Amino acid sequence: MNLWQKYTPELVTDLYEFTMAESYLREGMDAPATFSLFIRSYPRDRAYFVSAGLEHLLELIPRFRFGEESLEYLASLGKFSSSFLHYLENFRFTGTVRAIPEGRLFFTQEPLLEVTAPIIEAQLIETLVINVLQMETLIASKAARCVQAARGRSLIDFSLRRTHGVDAGVKVARASYLAGFDGTSNVLAGKLFHIPVVGTMAHSYIISFPSELDSFYAFERAFPRSTVLLIDTYDTVHGAEKALRVARKMREKGLDLQGVRLDSGDMVQLSREVREIFHQGGFPDVKILVSGSLDEYTIEEMLNAGAEVDVFAVGTRMGVSADAPYFDIAYKLVEYDDRPVLKLSSGKKTWVGRKQVYRNLDEKGRMKGDTVALLQEEPPEGQPLLETVMEGGKPLREAESLKTVRERFQREWASLPEALRQTRPQSSYPVRISASLQQLEEKTAQEKKRTELAPLP
Amino acid sequence: MNLWQKYTPELVTDLYEFTMAESYLREGMDAPATFSLFIRSYPRDRAYFVSAGLEHLLELIPRFRFGEESLEYLASLGKFSSSFLHYLENFRFTGTVRAIPEGRLFFTQEPLLEVTAPIIEAQLIETLVINVLQMETLIASKAARCVQAARGRSLIDFSLRRTHGVDAGVKVARASYLAGFDGTSNVLAGKLFHIPVVGTMAHSYIISFPSELDSFYAFERAFPRSTVLLIDTYDTVHGAEKALRVARKMREKGLDLQGVRLDSGDMVQLSREVREIFHQGGFPDVKILVSGSLDEYTIEEMLNAGAEVDVFAVGTRMGVSADAPYFDIAYKLVEYDDRPVLKLSSGKKTWVGRKQVYRNLDEKGRMKGDTVALLQEEPPEGQPLLETVMEGGKPLREAESLKTVRERFQREWASLPEALRQTRPQSSYPVRISASLQQLEEKTAQEKKRTELAPLP
Repeated sequence: MNLWQKYTPELVTDLYEFTMAESYLREGMDAPATFSLFIRSYPRDRAYFVSAGLEHLLELIPRFRFGEESLEYLASLGKFSSSFLHYLENFRFTGTVRAIPEGRLFFTQEPLLEVTAPIIEAQLIETLVINVLQMETLIASKAARCVQAARGRSLIDFSLRRTHGVDAGVKVARASYLAGFDGTSNVLAGKLFHIPVVGTMAHSYIISFPSELDSFYAFERAFPRSTVLLIDTYDTVHGAEKALRVARKMREKGLDLQGVRLDSGDMVQLSREVREIFHQGGFPDVKILVSGSLDEYTIEEMLNAGAEVDVFAVGTRMGVSADAPYFDIAYKLVEYDDRPVLKLSSGKKTWVGRKQVYRNLDEKGRMKGDTVALLQEEPPEGQPLLETVMEGGKPLREAESLKTVRERFQREWASLPEALRQTRPQSSYPVRISASLQQLEEKTAQEKKRTELAPLP
Repeated sequence: MNLWQKYTPELVTDLYEFTMAESYLREGMDAPATFSLFIRSYPRDRAYFVSAGLEHLLELIPRFRFGEESLEYLASLGKFSSSFLHYLENFRFTGTVRAIPEGRLFFTQEPLLEVTAPIIEAQLIETLVINVLQMETLIASKAARCVQAARGRSLIDFSLRRTHGVDAGVKVARASYLAGFDGTSNVLAGKLFHIPVVGTMAHSYIISFPSELDSFYAFERAFPRSTVLLIDTYDTVHGAEKALRVARKMREKGLDLQGVRLDSGDMVQLSREVREIFHQGGFPDVKILVSGSLDEYTIEEMLNAGAEVDVFAVGTRMGVSADAPYFDIAYKLVEYDDRPVLKLSSGKKTWVGRKQVYRNLDEKGRMKGDTVALLQEEPPEGQPLLETVMEGGKPLREAESLKTVRERFQREWASLPEALRQTRPQSSYPVRISASLQQLEEKTAQEKKRTELAPLP
């Protein structure tokens, strides 16, 4: 059995979820609690987040059940009471989940998701919720930046080898496709999510043949209708001339060389030389693919400098979100037993209560500002973003296809102001906090300061 | 069925592994090939790498087989010949794997692993090899830095919620334990690898009670022998005074408060005040745990500034190796059909041929330099690092326990020169390339330049 077969959602848990749960049970605390998931701040150069990962979470929550093996392990720790272990035996999540659908844009302070359930249930799924949603949101947000930088050119995910494990690799392929990539090299993700898979050859292939030309001809024999040749193994310009020769031979047989790939060197200069070689040679339609250390910054620089590129194969830096490999995301208790709650820890503000986010568009359909408000207050103007996706622990709708989510992102993206799409945005999106929410926050904080900061009797 | 159950090693593959394989089969290329896995350069402030991930790889390679579902998917792509699909049906890896064992230190240019097998086999496992080994090596190397910075204090992995998916979370817990962490909050990893699991409570727990003191007493009721209290929810100093009161009540019952945790604010100042409160109160043995945005840099700064910390709970920045979220790692063909091969691509040097790394120690048992040499040349001085771990596609030994590997790392670490252990090392470890290897490299490159860079006839 391989390691992945042993992954089971109810143990994707920090131990403290269980110790807290043991105590809640012991104290008879089973009132409804609401937790809010949100991102506190933007990493450098970021101005938006792309919601992703919800479908996986909705698949996993109903499977958050404790079988014999998990119970035996927990019992073996010698920390838990038999009544708690018995409680876990019958555990299932029975709560409500409200969330911003995948493919939508959201901003700091806005809840991406709120869970309302008996406190043990809402608490136990904390680690799973964050692990699943932060990572896919992280990558979709990074990928959207690459797509923007590529200005209409095609992008392909090449990251699998250097993603943080296989779960990450699969999710990167999905999240980047969601955000506008056109395909992936990742065969497993292609199979699981029906993402177009692409790929041709590595340098190892070229050098295993007696000569570069031999390898080109061999590849053409195997894939005459999808020949893309890697041309930088020995020298990119020489490689392009050899590829041109292959293109001519193919034309004699009524075939077309589809493209060439560059993976090293001065990509701006080389891509222009290669374009010229094929243009002069009478093959203006041969596509130029570029790979190697790409991200939104290098893509933008290359295009600004006049690089001739049709397809960007983006790997590691997108697949690990290298410039911002995590978000400051938190899943915080905001209401327990119908009273708003908060902590006062310095520099870590959480908005209390169950909330909704309302989005306002201008006359051209562009996003002009969001309001975060209490769920129960008179709704302010705007379209509510959080939808109820689970009730009584059961999903309220069929799983959404990746196609649906991808199309939603396209529409959403079209409504994002131009200034926020930039690689280095100079402004930030307006997120207003409703007066009622501000008042409740202030009142709750004052009350806590009064009672908790008083000298001990 | 959850997503992880569908992960299967033979599809942890970039598509080009299959297109190359199709062509190799078609061309009748089945000679032995050797691929070398190595890291080209150090990220900033890095001076060593900790080998990790080999056990997982050795488990996965024999499972790299093509069942019906995988074959159907590959057939559905419409790219592959029926003879190739038939070949895959009977595929199994039959080659040799030589590798540096887990827990050992290695350096740039040194092969961490070499695979020798018929070229299709060695090629098809490329993506899997890199994905498995780079990530665990990345984290073990980062974790070792944190352990060094903590100067003998205890460390715990708190990263699961923000690792890149669940596979990463599990592997981070294992890799950090391997490199000297003492436990993890990650229950799944605790179960899979017998790592001690730790954890007490979140802020949500504290704020769900009418008062902080109520929550402290409730926790003590549930876990009287392992009470650790989170004290920064409202105000750290007030929290410490409340915890002191709990400690006194516990003492009356013959119990000991184990510790308190700080998660925000000026950790240096607060940890000193908290220590003073417990010291003055007659509880000098109460441990101080610190968490929140920790890595080797912040740990070092805190200790240099006189922070009073017994345990560091290190999360996100270690779990994603935030300052260096990937290594420049490559799996390169170095020999095919008994001839050395290489590419000439600019800035990406690979040493040709099958190789061994020899390590030399000084009279005090400290590492003083390695030599990378051809496997078949007269061995230079030193202990060879790569061991043959698989032959004929079968592991040559039982799987190593994490305990074994962890102890190996402890011994290895003791032999690393002090200067290289620093958070910001100013020197680098000497890695010499043998004269024979240099000559073969030069000769191979010259020959390739002569034949591949000549004008086309």
